[in-house]
Amino acid sequence: MAHLLSTSCMINVSSGCKPYYIPLNQGLRAFSTSSTLQASKSPFGRLVSYGEKPQRNLTVHATTLPISKEAPTQPGSGSHQSVNEPSKPQRVMVIGGDGYCGWATALHLSNKGYEVAIVDSLVRRLFDHQLGLESLTPIASIHNRLRCWKSLTGKTIELYIGDICDFEFLSETFKSFEPDAVVHFGEQRSAPYSMIDRSRAVFTQNNNVIGTLNVLFAIKEFREQCHLVKLGTMGEYGTPNIDIEEGYITITHNGRTDTLPYPKQASSFYHLSKVHDSNNIAFTCKAWGIRATDLNQGVVYGMKTDETGMHEELCNRLDYDGVFGTALNRFCVQAAVGHPLTVYGKGGQTRGYLDIRDTVQCVELAIANPGQSGEFRVFNQFTEQFSVNELAALVTKAGEKLGLNVESISVPNPRVEAEEHYYNAKHTKLIELGLEPHLLSDSLVDSLLNYAIKFKDRVDTKQMMPSVSWRKMGVKPRTITT
Amino acid sequence: MAHLLSTSCMINVSSGCKPYYIPLNQGLRAFSTSSTLQASKSPFGRLVSYGEKPQRNLTVHATTLPISKEAPTQPGSGSHQSVNEPSKPQRVMVIGGDGYCGWATALHLSNKGYEVAIVDSLVRRLFDHQLGLESLTPIASIHNRLRCWKSLTGKTIELYIGDICDFEFLSETFKSFEPDAVVHFGEQRSAPYSMIDRSRAVFTQNNNVIGTLNVLFAIKEFREQCHLVKLGTMGEYGTPNIDIEEGYITITHNGRTDTLPYPKQASSFYHLSKVHDSNNIAFTCKAWGIRATDLNQGVVYGMKTDETGMHEELCNRLDYDGVFGTALNRFCVQAAVGHPLTVYGKGGQTRGYLDIRDTVQCVELAIANPGQSGEFRVFNQFTEQFSVNELAALVTKAGEKLGLNVESISVPNPRVEAEEHYYNAKHTKLIELGLEPHLLSDSLVDSLLNYAIKFKDRVDTKQMMPSVSWRKMGVKPRTITT
Repeated sequence: MAHLLSTSCMINVSSGCKPYYIPLNQGLRAFSTSSTLQASKSPFGRLVSYGEKPQRNLTVHATTLPISKEAPTQPGSGSHQSVNEPSKPQRVMVIGGDGYCGWATALHLSNKGYEVAIVDSLVRRLFDHQLGLESLTPIASIHNRLRCWKSLTGKTIELYIGDICDFEFLSETFKSFEPDAVVHFGEQRSAPYSMIDRSRAVFTQNNNVIGTLNVLFAIKEFREQCHLVKLGTMGEYGTPNIDIEEGYITITHNGRTDTLPYPKQASSFYHLSKVHDSNNIAFTCKAWGIRATDLNQGVVYGMKTDETGMHEELCNRLDYDGVFGTALNRFCVQAAVGHPLTVYGKGGQTRGYLDIRDTVQCVELAIANPGQSGEFRVFNQFTEQFSVNELAALVTKAGEKLGLNVESISVPNPRVEAEEHYYNAKHTKLIELGLEPHLLSDSLVDSLLNYAIKFKDRVDTKQMMPSVSWRKMGVKPRTITT
Repeated sequence: MAHLLSTSCMINVSSGCKPYYIPLNQGLRAFSTSSTLQASKSPFGRLVSYGEKPQRNLTVHATTLPISKEAPTQPGSGSHQSVNEPSKPQRVMVIGGDGYCGWATALHLSNKGYEVAIVDSLVRRLFDHQLGLESLTPIASIHNRLRCWKSLTGKTIELYIGDICDFEFLSETFKSFEPDAVVHFGEQRSAPYSMIDRSRAVFTQNNNVIGTLNVLFAIKEFREQCHLVKLGTMGEYGTPNIDIEEGYITITHNGRTDTLPYPKQASSFYHLSKVHDSNNIAFTCKAWGIRATDLNQGVVYGMKTDETGMHEELCNRLDYDGVFGTALNRFCVQAAVGHPLTVYGKGGQTRGYLDIRDTVQCVELAIANPGQSGEFRVFNQFTEQFSVNELAALVTKAGEKLGLNVESISVPNPRVEAEEHYYNAKHTKLIELGLEPHLLSDSLVDSLLNYAIKFKDRVDTKQMMPSVSWRKMGVKPRTITT
């Protein structure tokens, strides 16, 4: 395997895709194949604006489309738009919009009437190639995904392909798209990936921290009123022996009281990068008046949303491997193929979880209800808490209903973490904004196990065991060949 | 001015300096001019090991020298050396050993019988060239400094010139020098510098965070028992409305109690980089068993230590400019030249301060009393608290004794900070280890004002006013030409 961080990598973007026809009962339209290509200097910094030229006439596409009745608020009704101003759809830039959460969110926002642009370097797809991993579900190229979406709904999602660590590229996307809100999923998001070797640790922190700094500078320079919705993680808090609050805690100490940032105890270079981001963002809110919402998200499970379920070309990725897969998704795939559920250590590790349908709902709620200029809001974004053992028990029970014989095994914990601990994290702010949670008990069989069974022929069981050790990571570039 | 972060910059290291003779009453010896040069790939990554070849026979130099009686503990008596093992000097690597605090510390440790190596890219000297700034005091090249030290004391300080962000370079220094302790001053250390423009902000966070990550990886890989003594800053805490503790705070919340990292509220990209470092180090202590001490240092003042005062070639730098100069040093220089003291805003900003003679004492105490493997200790390293107005009053009063007419003016505060606030920070841990503070009232006239007067002809008053605004910083590279 070539060294992961080699800068000689180039992403080839095909602009001559074959026309694709959607089913007759949904109308017959050929995809547009027109596209514009501009190259930037960075290896990942090729700016591709897909579809029409990136001009404001794209605004027309969305304003002429009906707004879904399910939208909890009128897009564009955020606090920084005057009540007397005619309402127009908010323009939302989704950074990392080709990824697991980003793709579902981009489609959801587009469906709800927002004007959406995806900004993505597509490097997540490169990681799969390099590590020999593959999504459980077959996923279409971002170009085919967007053509399909346009064909099904008539809605255009603009596409900018490049690396936000390249500020020249990011500046161009801001000047071209002029976002009212930026949803920032565009980070290396795997804890095990960040613990493979020194170069991946350094890449993760550099990529995430500098990328986010660039977004903050772009907002300050080009779109001062733009609302930053940043994906953090519940893992920033660690597992303290007191209740976890939403971002801040009021402390009385030696007779004085103050409300301070909640102490963080992250447990991987990835989780730490998110803590660094949170601190950087909080500072710019104070110093520059940036308005930002940090969504400390729990572990996401599930695959299907209203939008990704509309067509197989829109299908979301689902990772079950030891590097990018998370506990519950991996357990469901293991159950489907008769592999024992791999519980790390004692299995008492407790975390917050949420359905991906709630991820997209939460992000929309945050956008529709922006904070004030200079305000740094923190929402804990999850719906239920489970220990790993509880998850294993739920999957075992649900598997039985489908005739599966599910077993669990304990494998040596590759992480350094408490395996039995107190955990009680608050998560009321998004509920107060209108979040209506999907509960795991209701969706486990339908939305998870049945999908895992549907795609079980694609499962590579070699990917399932943990392959990255927190304690044993070293300085030499590791060339994983599973 | 060429763009600061251009990677085409090369540092020229002269190895053919002219022989220099020290005064007769200190003995007459020519400096050794032998040196070995090895080049690494990075632009700053030229590895220079000055003096003898970097072999263990250098150990002899220090073990044959008498240990100073003032040393509070025998060098090498740290807890990770068996009591039955014959005592040998500890080998201390001082990263950033050419800088203000680093140089004084390297000499002090060498004088106390430690075997010392300096690791430095010398980039701090480049910043002065690029920004048109100059130390109040004339400073010799690092090569002449070390030749002079060898000539005066017979002690060799090894020198490795390169960038710790270049892991190949850092690995070589670890394998060559085999440190028992690493004192890490090697960071971009100016808040205003980090707020000049986007590229300096990104440089500061990248340089500091990745450099420190590399040090942690080098310790894990090559010197697992090595004690990391890391320079943090009191600025990490910000100005909370409750007492500041040393690194941790015990919180009782909803009936449960835990001791957690003290919440941080840093107020520049530089201060934030130190917060990121602290979080990264804490994690590696837990995950890898690193032993580390984070010295959250206050604002350092003064110039002369026992060692830097031995000869003018050993003279330390003193910054009084608006970018690298700190309040008290700048006030003394302003008083010396009849320039009004520039108080930022209301002047109620209160911080912890310490004499540079206490900096070197504190670092030695930390090295001589290492923590346990896996322990992340935090010491608040300062001796007294003052508000800016209090400092101005002290300098005015001390100036009067020397016949100076000192005035103060309020200038618009370039920073975003509270100008009137509660401040009470604990600082007992270093006292408990034996720190004997030098107090400002005793040293202001002798150690500060008289030095400022001595060098007043070198003062460039144009450098004194604040030139960097927290609010106005932008994305375009700023080419400062004072």
